[in-house]
Amino acid sequence: MDWIALDWGGSHLRAWAMVGDKPVAHLADDCGTGTLSRGEFGPALLALVGEWLDDTRCIPAYACGMLGSRQGWVEAPYRAVPCAPLGGGLVAAPQTDPRIQVHVVPGLKQARPADVMRGEETQIAGFLALNPGWDGVICLPGTHSKWAHVSAGEVVSFQTFLTGESFALLSDRSVLRHGMAGWDEAGFDAGLAQGLDRPDRLLSRLFTLRAEGLLDGLDPATARARLSGLLIGAELAAAKPYWLGQRVAVLGAGDLAALYARALDGLSVPVSAHTAEAATLAGLAAARAAHVKDAQCAT
Amino acid sequence: MDWIALDWGGSHLRAWAMVGDKPVAHLADDCGTGTLSRGEFGPALLALVGEWLDDTRCIPAYACGMLGSRQGWVEAPYRAVPCAPLGGGLVAAPQTDPRIQVHVVPGLKQARPADVMRGEETQIAGFLALNPGWDGVICLPGTHSKWAHVSAGEVVSFQTFLTGESFALLSDRSVLRHGMAGWDEAGFDAGLAQGLDRPDRLLSRLFTLRAEGLLDGLDPATARARLSGLLIGAELAAAKPYWLGQRVAVLGAGDLAALYARALDGLSVPVSAHTAEAATLAGLAAARAAHVKDAQCAT
Repeated sequence: MDWIALDWGGSHLRAWAMVGDKPVAHLADDCGTGTLSRGEFGPALLALVGEWLDDTRCIPAYACGMLGSRQGWVEAPYRAVPCAPLGGGLVAAPQTDPRIQVHVVPGLKQARPADVMRGEETQIAGFLALNPGWDGVICLPGTHSKWAHVSAGEVVSFQTFLTGESFALLSDRSVLRHGMAGWDEAGFDAGLAQGLDRPDRLLSRLFTLRAEGLLDGLDPATARARLSGLLIGAELAAAKPYWLGQRVAVLGAGDLAALYARALDGLSVPVSAHTAEAATLAGLAAARAAHVKDAQCAT
Repeated sequence: MDWIALDWGGSHLRAWAMVGDKPVAHLADDCGTGTLSRGEFGPALLALVGEWLDDTRCIPAYACGMLGSRQGWVEAPYRAVPCAPLGGGLVAAPQTDPRIQVHVVPGLKQARPADVMRGEETQIAGFLALNPGWDGVICLPGTHSKWAHVSAGEVVSFQTFLTGESFALLSDRSVLRHGMAGWDEAGFDAGLAQGLDRPDRLLSRLFTLRAEGLLDGLDPATARARLSGLLIGAELAAAKPYWLGQRVAVLGAGDLAALYARALDGLSVPVSAHTAEAATLAGLAAARAAHVKDAQCAT
């Protein structure tokens, strides 16, 4: 093992043992940054990857995600777009164990409209490393979906949508939860069409799901998929300035990336879907390579 | 005391001791229907109003709200619009104590777009009783905001928006909760203008609140009020077919009704704000009067 790659988000910690740019082992748990106070990061990391460490050396780790936020392990101040997704500014976390040293990749910020990302910049960098010279729009669906306009190796602008978090809150905690379970593809397509057509009607379409459940016995799988379609449709409608006339790469977990890619394909957008994990690892590898090179130049 | 008026919603139980159409005493607790299984309704009611009962007679109670739903005390099947807001169909709850008998007002349903209300029909009826011959649009803001087109004493159509529930989920349980506290009038106005102007951008404007908190130190009172404005603005934009060219009566709790009335006034809509409680009591009194008259005709 040469180094450790870490994706440390609000609700998860994922680690890969790396040889060069290749993962040779993977571990994960749900010790997200949201569950930890500052002093708990070091112990949480050792609890997961301790078995990979040995007393003969200090292994470097490269990390992206919310661990670099103000409430995280160590703050890695945002870099302002337009800029390359990676460009130095790595911040060393407090060394709580002599066998490992974590370097944190900073996120990106945009002044107007105000926006921030942490973790996605690494995925974007990884995608560009895997697809040299690529220009276009990168869509990163999820809890906080991101759309980024990428040109000449730089993130020019980006926009975040609260789509995934809204879906989770509405399907699990709102009045809609009573009639939601499973998944139905046709329900998703119907919601997507409604959301794309009239994104301004979202707040009333949400209650229609409940009313159809009460009056028409709407199937819970249809209801849940239609809710997802309504929200993703509203996101796509509002993100039109990003995808119109562009090619789009969707980076995400398999099912979600496929949903977005299918929706964009239905809008005649040239689109490809990619696994977020491969992009994350390629991005962290790029961050490491640049860091090692900087260190060699400095000595 | 002649009778008892009950407003029994998902999260509250409110009771008034009535002499004719006038309340002479009021009690309330948070034993909403959402917290009760079917067998617990009778005991919950006695726990609140037991002190008002005596062994010499059976006092009638008239009730509106979620206690008439399928998961409530007794199902009072919806009546279909267009129809008068009240029109018979009262359902007697199981009599669990000889000193009180509860009669439940049915809600209203609409086939297309599917929609339902329980409780608001009584407020609409009460408003019409207090304002005879009134035609126009009634707006009932709240957890599930309702807009109803009323003509010649009938509810012609109505539409529900998940505005209040979305505000509660987003301000209390989403990532936005970290920077939300208090209230700032200018923040509300700014959000209202944004929501009215571009309701389709709601999902991205939500995240902008978070980003401005991180990057610009957005004041928590401004953030919370702007969130409210964004949601109410989006509701008003989508409800335009209801209020355009109409006069609007807003029935609601004081602060919320005032917010909606001010927003509608800003759109040059002739608007008046009214206390929901007075409308509820007038509506239940009307339901009682019709019920007593029916009983007399039957004997």
